Amino acid sequence: MLTAQEIEQIIWAGLPAAKESGLRIERASPDGRVRARFVYGPQMIRPGGTLSGPTMMALADAAMFAAIMARLGRLEMAVTTNLNINFLRRPAPEDLVADASILKLGKRLAVLEVSIFSSSDLTQSDAEPVAHVTGTYSLPPS
Amino acid sequence: MLTAQEIEQIIWAGLPAAKESGLRIERASPDGRVRARFVYGPQMIRPGGTLSGPTMMALADAAMFAAIMARLGRLEMAVTTNLNINFLRRPAPEDLVADASILKLGKRLAVLEVSIFSSSDLTQSDAEPVAHVTGTYSLPPS
Amino acid sequence: MLTAQEIEQIIWAGLPAAKESGLRIERASPDGRVRARFVYGPQMIRPGGTLSGPTMMALADAAMFAAIMARLGRLEMAVTTNLNINFLRRPAPEDLVADASILKLGKRLAVLEVSIFSSSDLTQSDAEPVAHVTGTYSLPPS
Amino acid sequence: MLTAQEIEQIIWAGLPAAKESGLRIERASPDGRVRARFVYGPQMIRPGGTLSGPTMMALADAAMFAAIMARLGRLEMAVTTNLNINFLRRPAPEDLVADASILKLGKRLAVLEVSIFSSSDLTQSDAEPVAHVTGTYSLPPS
Repeated sequence: MLTAQEIEQIIWAGLPAAKESGLRIERASPDGRVRARFVYGPQMIRPGGTLSGPTMMALADAAMFAAIMARLGRLEMAVTTNLNINFLRRPAPEDLVADASILKLGKRLAVLEVSIFSSSDLTQSDAEPVAHVTGTYSLPPS
Repeated sequence: MLTAQEIEQIIWAGLPAAKESGLRIERASPDGRVRARFVYGPQMIRPGGTLSGPTMMALADAAMFAAIMARLGRLEMAVTTNLNINFLRRPAPEDLVADASILKLGKRLAVLEVSIFSSSDLTQSDAEPVAHVTGTYSLPPS
Repeated sequence: MLTAQEIEQIIWAGLPAAKESGLRIERASPDGRVRARFVYGPQMIRPGGTLSGPTMMALADAAMFAAIMARLGRLEMAVTTNLNINFLRRPAPEDLVADASILKLGKRLAVLEVSIFSSSDLTQSDAEPVAHVTGTYSLPPS
Repeated sequence: MLTAQEIEQIIWAGLPAAKESGLRIERASPDGRVRARFVYGPQMIRPGGTLSGPTMMALADAAMFAAIMARLGRLEMAVTTNLNINFLRRPAPEDLVADASILKLGKRLAVLEVSIFSSSDLTQSDAEPVAHVTGTYSLPPS
């Protein structure tokens, strides 16, 4: 099984921009539960002092990719086929944390769910997400 | 009515990263039809030599935002509430072009559609998109 | 606060077809958590002996509508603006149960999440959903 | 190649409820363009005198299924994996017409787009859709 650190290294190796942009994989369990983080940076800002939608979409996509590798091992050729995001609240200008899990793992498709939080909200027991994502990955024939 | 260049300036002013990342607004008509472009850059690459999903999501989001301003004028406070993207084909490592249009313009919500192409495919009469996006923007009370 | 039975009556009054088609509202709590059920009927079948997608979409839409009323009271004029469904597993030919909850309740929009199960699976502690839905409702100005 | 009438017969044979509920396949071309219709019936009504969301979702799903068969021939085992619908305008209490087309046809997945109209609007050159749908079908291994 791959550790969070190993998954982070695989993603950074494939996407050097991910490391520079502050992507971290904090936790990964063999059942496909992953916690990813975007360390806050000014490039995430959009007008109004909140964080941009593409920043949250990029974090969700990386978290789903990490969740598949946490469950199945190295699988760089898995590709996103669909991503649906609902933006729920204006995130504060701080780190974003994404919790991903696998809703369905089939032979050809994996469907995942991601909740994105402002990191300071996670100290609360009932943190409300700033965005919610579902996505589908196409898995390479094994 | 705002021109493509005026809309580009508004977006660049709000999102300096957008200019650096190669975002251009090439066309904008008062009915809300917009063509946006991401000038190819190595930061767009993902493993396999194709372009990353977040790059296409960012381009689609910017194209929809531009389409709303083309139709309604300056409206920086419009925010994305939902974005759904289907990834259709592997884009070549080259510029991406997004054609956005407005499906519905209500008092509170705008629903838009975006087709994303590899720029070299646009020379063909029947270019097939590399991704298709629908999204909803919440409009500020006027 | 409206009870599950009161919500069921409101829905049946507005949609007589819902009652005939087997829709039930089993639980409703003031925080917007609702359990809805479609009692199995032959009209739900699709080729292959499984249940049709539209049956699951109709159940999810009703469960979201019920969740909004559980939280806000009578609100017949709330309308669905977006619904996204991922079909995860083939449901057995039996009752379908939908658990809905509110992800975000704003002044103008509510975003909800629904997990749909085959009723016999709910006896398991870790029942896997047959479908997962997110949706947005537009709320009438109060 | 299957004609619209042959596709209609295949759908009716698999889903007798579809015939009773007023589903018709009016046009089908080998490139996967299909026009489907729901003949108006009182069971489609929702409070407010407009047509229900599930009615439009069922029509869109049938139109996509028909489009796949128009392109590939008999393929009853194709199944919907994702459907995303945006409700744009309140449909009048009359027939609904759905125009479906194929955005991408892969070996394992097909992605389709559907625009739904109130039938009386189609007499206008610039009819505005009442709903817009994108969906993904999983294709059986050939």
